[in-house]
Amino acid sequence: MPSAPRFHILYRITPDDSRPIEAHAKDICLEETVEIPGDCVPPAIWEAGIVGQVEAITPCAPPSRAFDVAISYRADITNDSIPNLLNIIFGNISIRRGIKIIDIRLTPDQLRAFGGPRFGTAGLRAALGVHGRPLAATAIKPLGLSVQALARLAGGYALGGLDVIKDDHGLMDQHFHPFQERVARVQEAIRNANAKTGRKTLYFPMIAGRFDQIEAQMDYARAEGCAGALIAPMLIGPDTGFHLARKYGLAVMTHPSFTGTHFHDPEHGITPAMLLGRLFRVFGADISVFPNAGGRFTFTPDECQDLAVAMREPLGDVKPGFPSPAGGMTIEKIDSLVAAFGDDAVFLIGGALMRHSPDPEIGARAFITAIEQAVSGGKAAE
Amino acid sequence: MPSAPRFHILYRITPDDSRPIEAHAKDICLEETVEIPGDCVPPAIWEAGIVGQVEAITPCAPPSRAFDVAISYRADITNDSIPNLLNIIFGNISIRRGIKIIDIRLTPDQLRAFGGPRFGTAGLRAALGVHGRPLAATAIKPLGLSVQALARLAGGYALGGLDVIKDDHGLMDQHFHPFQERVARVQEAIRNANAKTGRKTLYFPMIAGRFDQIEAQMDYARAEGCAGALIAPMLIGPDTGFHLARKYGLAVMTHPSFTGTHFHDPEHGITPAMLLGRLFRVFGADISVFPNAGGRFTFTPDECQDLAVAMREPLGDVKPGFPSPAGGMTIEKIDSLVAAFGDDAVFLIGGALMRHSPDPEIGARAFITAIEQAVSGGKAAE
Repeated sequence: MPSAPRFHILYRITPDDSRPIEAHAKDICLEETVEIPGDCVPPAIWEAGIVGQVEAITPCAPPSRAFDVAISYRADITNDSIPNLLNIIFGNISIRRGIKIIDIRLTPDQLRAFGGPRFGTAGLRAALGVHGRPLAATAIKPLGLSVQALARLAGGYALGGLDVIKDDHGLMDQHFHPFQERVARVQEAIRNANAKTGRKTLYFPMIAGRFDQIEAQMDYARAEGCAGALIAPMLIGPDTGFHLARKYGLAVMTHPSFTGTHFHDPEHGITPAMLLGRLFRVFGADISVFPNAGGRFTFTPDECQDLAVAMREPLGDVKPGFPSPAGGMTIEKIDSLVAAFGDDAVFLIGGALMRHSPDPEIGARAFITAIEQAVSGGKAAE
Repeated sequence: MPSAPRFHILYRITPDDSRPIEAHAKDICLEETVEIPGDCVPPAIWEAGIVGQVEAITPCAPPSRAFDVAISYRADITNDSIPNLLNIIFGNISIRRGIKIIDIRLTPDQLRAFGGPRFGTAGLRAALGVHGRPLAATAIKPLGLSVQALARLAGGYALGGLDVIKDDHGLMDQHFHPFQERVARVQEAIRNANAKTGRKTLYFPMIAGRFDQIEAQMDYARAEGCAGALIAPMLIGPDTGFHLARKYGLAVMTHPSFTGTHFHDPEHGITPAMLLGRLFRVFGADISVFPNAGGRFTFTPDECQDLAVAMREPLGDVKPGFPSPAGGMTIEKIDSLVAAFGDDAVFLIGGALMRHSPDPEIGARAFITAIEQAVSGGKAAE
């Protein structure tokens, strides 16, 4: 078997025993590929480069005890498949400790095969006709509200000028707001509002059906004229939503539900930048929602900045996508959001809009006005 | 909206701030359902029980600072859907800290809807004709070996008397051992061996294709006569493999790849017993592979025992399944495996069989002999 191009993963390893770092690095190379002791690996398998290869080991600056270990794998092991890629980079070793993925460098061919966002920042801005400011988004909620009430909320938010309306991610296919009825009525309310305003508010319904339902749901959302799909990759399967959204021509907004055990321990898992940023973008996220620092969750400001960079930095032929800070954001925080994330972001404010006013149109207007003021204030100050 | 039956989750909460435990408990109730501040929740939503409800708060024994908090949710919110259930019990709160799911009590209707193992311990024993001892399993490996060599290994293991042969979970659909050719040749080798021995070794190929491939793979495995599917729920989607295996009549062996960030921190995530045991069993696992204590991974003996209990204890109409200790097991450890797990387990020894002998038949025979001796020794000592 001839050798093949390789991709690179940077692991930050915090050793939990006294063995040398080289032994920990070699463990990963074997565990993530051949899963047998090194002396049992047939020579032809070694020669073909099937086993992971340690490319560099760099100690972190004290007082850290950690090392940054670059390991390369044959790209054709992953077969351009998301399940396969996740298995190789963090399958069995997820069940260890002290291993954090801090960088992921795929080959140009892999990037092309996974494909990245279909629309990206430029495509979504063109669809909206909005330039030169961050986008304003909200979620219709709460779970349990009638379809009529959800549609009224959506219509009001659209009249008030929001750019993106998504379902709260807990709205799936419950009998009190069935998927089809909800998607049809909410999209209708937004369409009617758009006809009045001349704008184009985009709707991202939550699509999370079982394996046998989800393709029909994606097709239904497209047929109703929805712009995109809100998907939670770890709930429905890491490749399911990306694959179907691409097939049906929908933009993708990703939600981090059920991903959090990768983040709470700085020494183990995958960083928010690499999982919610790099990987979700490469897989197809036009917008990646994440819990911003200062809200109800645990991300640090640095982690949020790194995630925003991962969504937007140059990356082969992959388009940039929008980072979407959320999770306890308020209108009062917009100045600091603009300062932190600049224009190419989607600010997601949910509960705080409901608190601002019982009339969604008023809340939406206040939100958009605050963004415009923050942007023009920032530009005047330049 | 009338009220509805509720299911119960027991969270062990280790507070990371000085707020009272009641505040942490209420956070979860809101975060996992309505996702808005309590004072924004419409009265009808409260009255319908849509918000999670704290049922009990019990302090853990000192020196632990933790509390066990029982929270109930309306069963119809989950819609008998795996993505929906995972979102409600640990969606957004996965992105916090200090929250561990230690018990999951679904309603009888939910258990019936999810369905559990199709075959269970009794069904797989009947298919094998093996009773009164643990089952012996191995994996064909390593990644990169030719299909012919993999088939030779499988045939030898079957001739030597192993009960279950699975693919190493890294074998997916790589061009050097394509899915169809691999499954057909390996199953053929096992069929030929079975014809010689008069036994019935069962083959569980790894099924991990992309969304658009995986159903055809499941169908192919069934058509070739495979007994079951090896699936990694977190790689292909938590409900994908269970759904398809049920549709095509295959038994299910689950693999824990990419689940491990739930386990490495005792204060956050879902315990191995609840994720790899209770949930995977309820979703349909006939056999749940896990990394046993004393091998290459981090589970404690207690965690492994709890997982075995979760696979086998009475649970409504749900059949018991086999716990399958793996991850660095050896023939020398079989006495202790029998002592720890008794008869209703599938012992999975991989690399150590290759090391025992270059002839797979010899390794398999030694494995089975060791099990039979351990069981008869244990029974003689009773």
